[in-house]
Amino acid sequence: MSGRRTSGRLIGIGVGPGDPELMTLKATRALAEADLLVHFAKTGSMSHARTIAAGHIKADTPELPLFYPMTSERPRNGTCYRDAMREFYDHAAATLAAELDAGRAVAVICEGDPLFYGSYMHLHVRLAPRYPTQVIAGVTGMSGCWSAVGAPIAQGDDVFMVLPATLEEAELERRLKDADAAVVMKLGRHLPKIRRTLARIGRLERAIYVERGSTQSAVMMRLADKPDDAAPYFAVVLVPGWEKRA
Amino acid sequence: MSGRRTSGRLIGIGVGPGDPELMTLKATRALAEADLLVHFAKTGSMSHARTIAAGHIKADTPELPLFYPMTSERPRNGTCYRDAMREFYDHAAATLAAELDAGRAVAVICEGDPLFYGSYMHLHVRLAPRYPTQVIAGVTGMSGCWSAVGAPIAQGDDVFMVLPATLEEAELERRLKDADAAVVMKLGRHLPKIRRTLARIGRLERAIYVERGSTQSAVMMRLADKPDDAAPYFAVVLVPGWEKRA
Repeated sequence: MSGRRTSGRLIGIGVGPGDPELMTLKATRALAEADLLVHFAKTGSMSHARTIAAGHIKADTPELPLFYPMTSERPRNGTCYRDAMREFYDHAAATLAAELDAGRAVAVICEGDPLFYGSYMHLHVRLAPRYPTQVIAGVTGMSGCWSAVGAPIAQGDDVFMVLPATLEEAELERRLKDADAAVVMKLGRHLPKIRRTLARIGRLERAIYVERGSTQSAVMMRLADKPDDAAPYFAVVLVPGWEKRA
Repeated sequence: MSGRRTSGRLIGIGVGPGDPELMTLKATRALAEADLLVHFAKTGSMSHARTIAAGHIKADTPELPLFYPMTSERPRNGTCYRDAMREFYDHAAATLAAELDAGRAVAVICEGDPLFYGSYMHLHVRLAPRYPTQVIAGVTGMSGCWSAVGAPIAQGDDVFMVLPATLEEAELERRLKDADAAVVMKLGRHLPKIRRTLARIGRLERAIYVERGSTQSAVMMRLADKPDDAAPYFAVVLVPGWEKRA
């Protein structure tokens, strides 16, 4: 387009799983160079990514928090929820496009790795076709978890799977049986189902429950030892592979 | 055991996918504090992990390269290969145990993430039960690849799989059909099989071929556009999920 300044660029920055020391050198440098810092948060909450990156954000860098729409009243798989989220991302992308058109380096910070189950992807698909874009890979939340526990997760020719806890019980069983190693994510209220399924297929013994893996307040235990069914949304269960080898 | 000094500790350090800037702050600090630096390499080659970490290794830190046994003459799934590898890891662990017993901080550097398909795991399972051990998570090779390409890999409730290219063709087809998103790794001579399979199930169009993802010499292209069947062992094919959403 004629007249548009072309120096604007989009940078998706993975800040890792929680421990600020697990940020990459590249992420800390990109933070220092950003003209505008963008982060996602729930209304009324501080962005987790912002908290992780705090030590590397310059005081005079302008920030743009993007607050997710209030959707807790709507079923997550319903049309209304999807429409609200699409509208939110469309609007956010338009806001960022204006900054990019003005020639700014716009950095979007994300927990974990930007292109692996991250909100950043919704901005990326809307903006990367139109603006120079760089994605800085980060340590994923699940790597943070198995490293904190010290659990070798997959080796050699293992088939590794990431499974959402929302899968129906029969489907979850079928897939867990079909995996050498797995991570079940987004536990929340689904924990009893995961525990039952792993017990039924004989894999409860080696399964590990992890909350906030790489942080000071981490909770880690054998799933078989967990005394209750309470789990936050972002807790995971690790099902390590590599049972028959050493 | 009485008489053993207990200050020895084992540190598994992930140095990320290739770009030295994708090392974590924690990894660079641990390198500076190590009493002994251990890395795996093929005989006659420099360790890739050592090359990535080079800028952060102090000149006076002693190093111990562990050279894989020459196994190219033996089938990788044969008993002889497995025995040779087991003996190699047993011997390496015994060497490290002597250093740990002497109270040293022994750092093993690894490409990618130490507990995700890494050689470090073989030392970890032998030594972590006996010595204080810390694992420093790293950016995985595959995160480096999809970030370099800028390809959103998985989102929402996607089922994500890591599949070794060594799977038989029918099994590979079954599993790829069953995955929303996948990474096929260890390509080597298996590339034609992967290409055929993806074409047959209608997913060749979006598949991406990547060599040395996060390095200066990266090779990235649509798999459908790759003009030949040559691929190094560590090349991957990305099969992004998220086809129906935005």
